Amino acid sequence: MADRRRRDMTLVAFLQAQNCSNYPGSWRHAEAIPDFLTAEHYMRIARTLEEGKFHLAFFDDRLAMPDIYGNDHRPAVEYGIRSVKMDLIPLLTAMGLATKHLGLGGTYSTTYYEPFHVARTFATLDLMIGGRAAWNVVTSLNDSEARNMGRTEHPGHDERYDRADEFIECVLGHWQSWEDDALVVDRRRGGTFADPNKVHRLDYQGKYFASRGPFTVPRSPQGQPVMIQAGQSGRGKLFAAKWGELVFASYKTLAIAKAQYAELKGAVSAAGRDPDSVRIAPPIYAVVGETRAIAREKEAYLASLAQPEDALCLLGEILNFDFSKHGLDGALTDADMAGITGQHALRDRIIAASGTNNPTPRHFIEKSGRGTIYEMPVFCGTAADVADEMEAWYQGEGCDGFVVAATHRPGAYEDFSRYVVPELQRRGVFHQDYAGTTLRENLGLPKSVARGAPTMRL
Amino acid sequence: MADRRRRDMTLVAFLQAQNCSNYPGSWRHAEAIPDFLTAEHYMRIARTLEEGKFHLAFFDDRLAMPDIYGNDHRPAVEYGIRSVKMDLIPLLTAMGLATKHLGLGGTYSTTYYEPFHVARTFATLDLMIGGRAAWNVVTSLNDSEARNMGRTEHPGHDERYDRADEFIECVLGHWQSWEDDALVVDRRRGGTFADPNKVHRLDYQGKYFASRGPFTVPRSPQGQPVMIQAGQSGRGKLFAAKWGELVFASYKTLAIAKAQYAELKGAVSAAGRDPDSVRIAPPIYAVVGETRAIAREKEAYLASLAQPEDALCLLGEILNFDFSKHGLDGALTDADMAGITGQHALRDRIIAASGTNNPTPRHFIEKSGRGTIYEMPVFCGTAADVADEMEAWYQGEGCDGFVVAATHRPGAYEDFSRYVVPELQRRGVFHQDYAGTTLRENLGLPKSVARGAPTMRL
Repeated sequence: MADRRRRDMTLVAFLQAQNCSNYPGSWRHAEAIPDFLTAEHYMRIARTLEEGKFHLAFFDDRLAMPDIYGNDHRPAVEYGIRSVKMDLIPLLTAMGLATKHLGLGGTYSTTYYEPFHVARTFATLDLMIGGRAAWNVVTSLNDSEARNMGRTEHPGHDERYDRADEFIECVLGHWQSWEDDALVVDRRRGGTFADPNKVHRLDYQGKYFASRGPFTVPRSPQGQPVMIQAGQSGRGKLFAAKWGELVFASYKTLAIAKAQYAELKGAVSAAGRDPDSVRIAPPIYAVVGETRAIAREKEAYLASLAQPEDALCLLGEILNFDFSKHGLDGALTDADMAGITGQHALRDRIIAASGTNNPTPRHFIEKSGRGTIYEMPVFCGTAADVADEMEAWYQGEGCDGFVVAATHRPGAYEDFSRYVVPELQRRGVFHQDYAGTTLRENLGLPKSVARGAPTMRL
Repeated sequence: MADRRRRDMTLVAFLQAQNCSNYPGSWRHAEAIPDFLTAEHYMRIARTLEEGKFHLAFFDDRLAMPDIYGNDHRPAVEYGIRSVKMDLIPLLTAMGLATKHLGLGGTYSTTYYEPFHVARTFATLDLMIGGRAAWNVVTSLNDSEARNMGRTEHPGHDERYDRADEFIECVLGHWQSWEDDALVVDRRRGGTFADPNKVHRLDYQGKYFASRGPFTVPRSPQGQPVMIQAGQSGRGKLFAAKWGELVFASYKTLAIAKAQYAELKGAVSAAGRDPDSVRIAPPIYAVVGETRAIAREKEAYLASLAQPEDALCLLGEILNFDFSKHGLDGALTDADMAGITGQHALRDRIIAASGTNNPTPRHFIEKSGRGTIYEMPVFCGTAADVADEMEAWYQGEGCDGFVVAATHRPGAYEDFSRYVVPELQRRGVFHQDYAGTTLRENLGLPKSVARGAPTMRL
């Protein structure tokens, strides 16, 4: 553990299959290349990330566009706030073919797909890109997504995780159902294609999901895709501790990171797993310049790209509340506050931080950072400054690495790869080169081995 | 029409995301390259097809492996009979990135996916490969697929088509919901990302499917993916006439082809569509050699690669009957024949062709051709011989082109592209080069235009 920590920071790029990065205003950046609907856009980013020796590029997903603000999708369309959201499998494939070492991970919801489909799609992706795929498991929580997928509302919180547990058992079981040496491919007449005793039927029968098998995709060079998890709630943390191999967790400050990192590693142990077998990485933005003054100016320019509507569109989605009627500085009434049916933890945080029970929309934006670059920690300065902050978090046991979100595309990753990565390498906390060709090798995770009958555990 | 027919034969390659081609024995071919689990395998085929100016490469799909023969999946695994079946989206993406003009089409079932998902995945693929995607609409009919996808049995025949009609309305509606010029991408602060009046909500509410929208993927260079259909039953033909832009239909002989081609074109007219706007192509094998003698020897070699178990695995699936108990020459009893609950049309064809009400498994194999290269017409001989047969079918109004299945991979397409294509070009029935960059341009189909509110028609 001590040895690993000295030289093995995990770096993940946080991407979106849309016009903007995590930062909604990023599409307005002066250097933004408007080819976000082409494969070349994502392949260019993939090549940059591989030059920077990133372990993984990762896409989130959302199956609907925002439309609670103004009770209409038009603001999201006009302001370009996640109104585009493409399926990520073609993008991940393209990025995998543009690279040789970069891992490629994507989010597929357990709420609206069948386990057999997700298992087959990610297993195929993993083969096509030579054992570098990862699946980010999420449960969906958004009524607009439910309506696009033929449901009237999403299932309750705990039921979603019960369903997700079953979903994962079923996917892992399928992934394990061809033994590693099942393929024979003896082309002689009468020769065997695959050993019939090494391909197993799953016969999964849960409360929510059933899938019989046998699965139809053999094992990949890394065995099976890496499991990513990003649960933040109490139940979500248990879920991450049980299933995650790479866990994304948002920490606002190093102090919070230290406490929650230790807690999550403890939960991994409590789940009967080796805490070193799970990598925990919080999202950050990095703004780097030749000098501190340049970096500060860059940060100010980046911050200026945000418009209040960006934030209010996104806040509307997570709070399930329409902010369009108040103006920026009109206080929400007690009735308004009671009508916020989304994330109560966020609502309560705004009340505490603003010091009033009747905050304004501006309070919501400023205190949450949502829709701005201040939604997550911003490490700003020279390469040494950024590396200092990263090293403090990493060596201080606040994380095993970082999910680097892009303030703009593709420049943020070009800057990071050219300025910050060499500095991290010089300090010996980040690898000089990839350890192998598969994502499991590069993350230092054990190769998954399928030895006999399918198992539904990691 | 007359002008088009002189020079515009449509050529489609019929692929499988597995170890074998349509011909199950093909994986035993002496030159078969055993890299069928890598992207390079499919990219190599794509480059060959583009050298041969094929319009489209197309994948079928099946969501389960055969397991009715012997009531077990082991024979399918041992003999390599479609025991591998990968998801086709990563493969289509890889092939699209290896080419610039070749169309790429894939099958996704209307039975086990959500319309929003299929619409988004194929629209994304279409963007990533520059407007060259096609979707083959199928309804699933196999109990093993149902069990993998969490159902106990598949829906009835007519209900499947009712569901498929709704599914397609919903997918087309989503594809039409961004107008062609909706994107603005004015990056100035206060600038518009997309015209909010040109992105429409679908609000689809059918008996089986519902999806609200708005869709999250803008239009592609060809507007939207091409619709492929392969219905053969009475209801399936109506469905193809209503929705298909490219229709695959199996015709055993030219006489049958002429009659059924005319009937299907009539059905297209009856559905209120221009018969010239639909291309009909039957599947064939081509075996070509420098001389007729070489071609005949090749055909004999190819035929020798089949094993009876190949056919009986596949016949078991479509007839829903276990042939493992009879030996090759044991007659099926009256009770056995009554127990065949799958395709009655095929069963009756075997009875008629064998001249007995109690045919043997060998009768089933020989009279159906299933599992052998004689399942579809085999055009064998020199390049001129093969071109003669193709021209006879094409000029004789038996088809608008062909779906060329591979007797083996990649050699069958290399032979076809090097021998037969130049001969077809010399005769002026096949294009010298691609007409454009999108699949619609290359097929001579009108560009799809989305002008206003989403429509649920072609």
